Amino acid sequence: MTKTEYLAIEAYMNEKMQDSAHDKHHVYRVLGGALDIANHETDVNMDVLIAACLIHDIGRDEQFKNPGTCHAKIGACMSYDYLVSCGWSTKKAQHVSDCISTHRFRSNSPPLSLEAKILFDSDKLEAAGLIGIARTLIYGGQTKEPLYIIDDNGKIVIDNGGADSVSFFQEYNFKLKNVYNAFYTDRAKKIAKGRQQAASNFYNCLHAEITGIYDISVERYLE
Amino acid sequence: MTKTEYLAIEAYMNEKMQDSAHDKHHVYRVLGGALDIANHETDVNMDVLIAACLIHDIGRDEQFKNPGTCHAKIGACMSYDYLVSCGWSTKKAQHVSDCISTHRFRSNSPPLSLEAKILFDSDKLEAAGLIGIARTLIYGGQTKEPLYIIDDNGKIVIDNGGADSVSFFQEYNFKLKNVYNAFYTDRAKKIAKGRQQAASNFYNCLHAEITGIYDISVERYLE
Repeated sequence: MTKTEYLAIEAYMNEKMQDSAHDKHHVYRVLGGALDIANHETDVNMDVLIAACLIHDIGRDEQFKNPGTCHAKIGACMSYDYLVSCGWSTKKAQHVSDCISTHRFRSNSPPLSLEAKILFDSDKLEAAGLIGIARTLIYGGQTKEPLYIIDDNGKIVIDNGGADSVSFFQEYNFKLKNVYNAFYTDRAKKIAKGRQQAASNFYNCLHAEITGIYDISVERYLE
Repeated sequence: MTKTEYLAIEAYMNEKMQDSAHDKHHVYRVLGGALDIANHETDVNMDVLIAACLIHDIGRDEQFKNPGTCHAKIGACMSYDYLVSCGWSTKKAQHVSDCISTHRFRSNSPPLSLEAKILFDSDKLEAAGLIGIARTLIYGGQTKEPLYIIDDNGKIVIDNGGADSVSFFQEYNFKLKNVYNAFYTDRAKKIAKGRQQAASNFYNCLHAEITGIYDISVERYLE
């Protein structure tokens, strides 16, 4: 890929993600992680991988406007059309499109090509370790999800089966904690494993801090 | 304080903090922390302390609407008027009002009474440890502050002196890291000290995760 081509794809990503200023840090981390994983593999099509990383989330704004849609499927179509319009062969554009189509964690379409697996793994590393913790807390602030739910007895509720129990604590237990088994490449497995203890320590320690605060009930001071 | 009085003050807090659903967890944690600190002190006026904790942040909505104002000063006036209207003596209402007036970290009015110091300390414990970390990240999501700033060389910028360098990393270095010297009571000092290592570990570990991702530049793959 030439630098001019790279800058054009980057500009297209910026154009399509105008409302997602801070998600761009995510895009560059996914790209950085993918380059690292690719360094530990052989015969990676770097053009396909770099393009797929840069524009893997361009369907997010559309999914945000229409929550029933899937940003991976929308982004896959958008990226194919865009790359063909730039003069890429239909085969190479389809390869990028397939990577983007299969990058979601909660999806029934697993990644097939090596480049698709690297994008998937690098995107999933964003849910591992303390980056995963930090991103989930920031997202909770954006969407007004609480840190935790407390029942009438001052006990933390992780999940009561209802939509009203969505919280960071639930998200950790049902998603973040389980991401470590989701990787395809050895390099991503190793990076994720190296981050796992810090994430687990964070959750356990935060849980203990919060539990301790609710130890004394105000009831004992009321007549 | 009777249970009826407590419930009335709690209802008043809820009425004044309608737009701050998740800040109510903060209020109850400040109350819980204050009860714990009070257990390690003598001659605490529990009525004053409980009322002050419950309504210490009722001026927040007003400060949000008029950013030049101070929620502590507004809340102090509101609480005095409210408690007098409930039949509290002017002396006791003033005591609560003074606690609320001096509870801010970034203020030139230090807390004077024991109850004011306990409220101050319990509120400041909310910036210590992993609760401090989690709250700051959630707040960053609400206000669209980024996790960190990266310069053109892929290096993390903690502070460049400009308003455009506001980030979680800056907030940690300039506020969260320094909160541990701000306490008045021995109990709060001990709790804060017990949480300090976890917060420091979180920051250092997250910093290392992010720095590692930017190690490989995409430039080497461009023609």
